[in-house]
Amino acid sequence: MSVSAKSETTLFVCITCRAEVGGNAPDDQPRAGARLYAAIEAVPSELRPALTVVPVECLSNCNRACTVAVTAPGKWTYVLGALDPEVHAHDVLAFARLHQQHEAGLPPWRERPEYIRKNTVARVPALAVPRTEQEASLP
Amino acid sequence: MSVSAKSETTLFVCITCRAEVGGNAPDDQPRAGARLYAAIEAVPSELRPALTVVPVECLSNCNRACTVAVTAPGKWTYVLGALDPEVHAHDVLAFARLHQQHEAGLPPWRERPEYIRKNTVARVPALAVPRTEQEASLP
Repeated sequence: MSVSAKSETTLFVCITCRAEVGGNAPDDQPRAGARLYAAIEAVPSELRPALTVVPVECLSNCNRACTVAVTAPGKWTYVLGALDPEVHAHDVLAFARLHQQHEAGLPPWRERPEYIRKNTVARVPALAVPRTEQEASLP
Repeated sequence: MSVSAKSETTLFVCITCRAEVGGNAPDDQPRAGARLYAAIEAVPSELRPALTVVPVECLSNCNRACTVAVTAPGKWTYVLGALDPEVHAHDVLAFARLHQQHEAGLPPWRERPEYIRKNTVARVPALAVPRTEQEASLP
């Protein structure tokens, strides 16, 4: 895979999420989603190369907050939920690296962090992805 | 919005979903996802103009089956779940039409079928969507 393709991976982080895991933050504290975004941004950039991290207002997964989505042009999009801002920043980045490294954005199941495996909310194919590619690596 | 943009809307339907709503199909019957796909395809084409319906193997929303996703180039992607193949084909198509008609793929909240409002699993922005556009219409 080309370097340019790697550079196009985007991680959307919902900054309006209230936590499901570990209870909600008091009203005078930053929301859990904003804290997850800060935790990801605090990871040294050499551990998240060529990944664009974008804060977003609501990914409509409020029942299973906190939520992120990993996507790239021509690849599958994954939505991950029930994330704890104090615990899961590195798991999210590990999943994003696997997504980056796979040409179709299909991280190998066994290599995914266990918590991410259990808390994948949905995935959506790239537009015009060949049917055989979808079937090659489930789910 | 141009006709060409309208023609590019895609509805992915998970055909491996087992039903959550109304119980699972017996093993010798088509799966609920396959029946939802058939129900959508059975709707007269004039009621689903310029919509490409694509069967997919697993959208990773198994806990809230049946599942579809609506997307188009440059627009938000929506994942809808807990769909009953005997009940919700027209609701899905109504939502897809609203998505088609909105330039950014953000169906007006009040116009969405009530069941879809309550069973939206996630949404993901288009890549490089302007921040102000995200904020304009929540969730």
